[in-house]
Amino acid sequence: MPTEIPVVEKILSANDRIAAENRQLLDAHGVVAWNVMASPGAGKTSLILRTIEALRDRVRIGVIEGDLAGRVDADKVAAAGAPVVQINTGGGCHLDAPQVQSALARLPLEEIDLLFIENVGNLVCPSGWDLGEHYKMMIAHVPEGHDKPIKYPNMFVVVDAFVLNKIDLIPYLDFDTDAFRRAVRALNAKAPLFELSCKTGEGVDAWVEWLRSHR
Amino acid sequence: MPTEIPVVEKILSANDRIAAENRQLLDAHGVVAWNVMASPGAGKTSLILRTIEALRDRVRIGVIEGDLAGRVDADKVAAAGAPVVQINTGGGCHLDAPQVQSALARLPLEEIDLLFIENVGNLVCPSGWDLGEHYKMMIAHVPEGHDKPIKYPNMFVVVDAFVLNKIDLIPYLDFDTDAFRRAVRALNAKAPLFELSCKTGEGVDAWVEWLRSHR
Repeated sequence: MPTEIPVVEKILSANDRIAAENRQLLDAHGVVAWNVMASPGAGKTSLILRTIEALRDRVRIGVIEGDLAGRVDADKVAAAGAPVVQINTGGGCHLDAPQVQSALARLPLEEIDLLFIENVGNLVCPSGWDLGEHYKMMIAHVPEGHDKPIKYPNMFVVVDAFVLNKIDLIPYLDFDTDAFRRAVRALNAKAPLFELSCKTGEGVDAWVEWLRSHR
Repeated sequence: MPTEIPVVEKILSANDRIAAENRQLLDAHGVVAWNVMASPGAGKTSLILRTIEALRDRVRIGVIEGDLAGRVDADKVAAAGAPVVQINTGGGCHLDAPQVQSALARLPLEEIDLLFIENVGNLVCPSGWDLGEHYKMMIAHVPEGHDKPIKYPNMFVVVDAFVLNKIDLIPYLDFDTDAFRRAVRALNAKAPLFELSCKTGEGVDAWVEWLRSHR
């Protein structure tokens, strides 16, 4: 007859266990990591490139790029002079901690202060997976409309910072900025919201200075 | 000792079995169903509203709306006078056949010729799930950039029609239309591509007339 053994420790999932290892590795090297989430085409890579440019000679930035296929974004980051590893998920709709673990092994962590982990473009799945990052952020963009917090609330709840990108397009679209701000605040009272344009550069300084101080 | 029994029939997954039932139900009522897929904010509901408006008094359109939360889109469709059912997936990143089955039970199928099933805004997960539709389509939109076929190929491969929405924004963005067309054709040689703007109405007629004839 089997003996019943009480389970007294929380058993982490395989993903969460490896995420914890990733965080330990990052901490050991003094690297602060951000999980960057957004819809496809919201401007994740554009914001990372703007941030690299603005913090050059002050903060050493590394990048992990996640996409189903291709290396378009990794090539752009490499051209900007930052160490970068591309992860291709095949059909996978989000990054997971084992994928990030293998990418970390290929990055010069001793030469990196700040790591951006650019997730697969998707407003749903990435929000539920711990990669070992310290902070989560999301980028909304004006063309996707101001109603996204209502339709995709999960991601808005979990992030530590919001960026609203492509504010230069507001004159050409029916985007209600006040309605967007209210919908964001109904889900997340704390995370700051930076409204900017990666194309024109408007508002990028405020984001970069906040990021630099938030470590 | 167990007897080995050869498996001679393809065993459908629970989803595919219910998808087949949905298709039978639709066929029995003469309803042609389209699974409409796209990123968040690409203009799925806007295209559906434009199509309802253009085909009024000629084709009776019904709609199933899929979102994680809320009923923003269903309210818009109802205001346009079309029968509509909203599905909320909670955290789910795509619709599935059982959800559509329950929605079909709440629609007046005998009064519908054409059914749009608007999937959750997501370029990844919806492409792998049969809902019982007859055709799949996707809407790309200019602000998400011309490189999406390279990064999210799976969906581009499986669809029967493409719409590129928001062409009115091309003057304000670095969108390379030729590069987009080439990348689409590298993945899918057959599905027609309609370039239009739901905002201005440009190009909508060609889409609507093709849709009407494609039954």
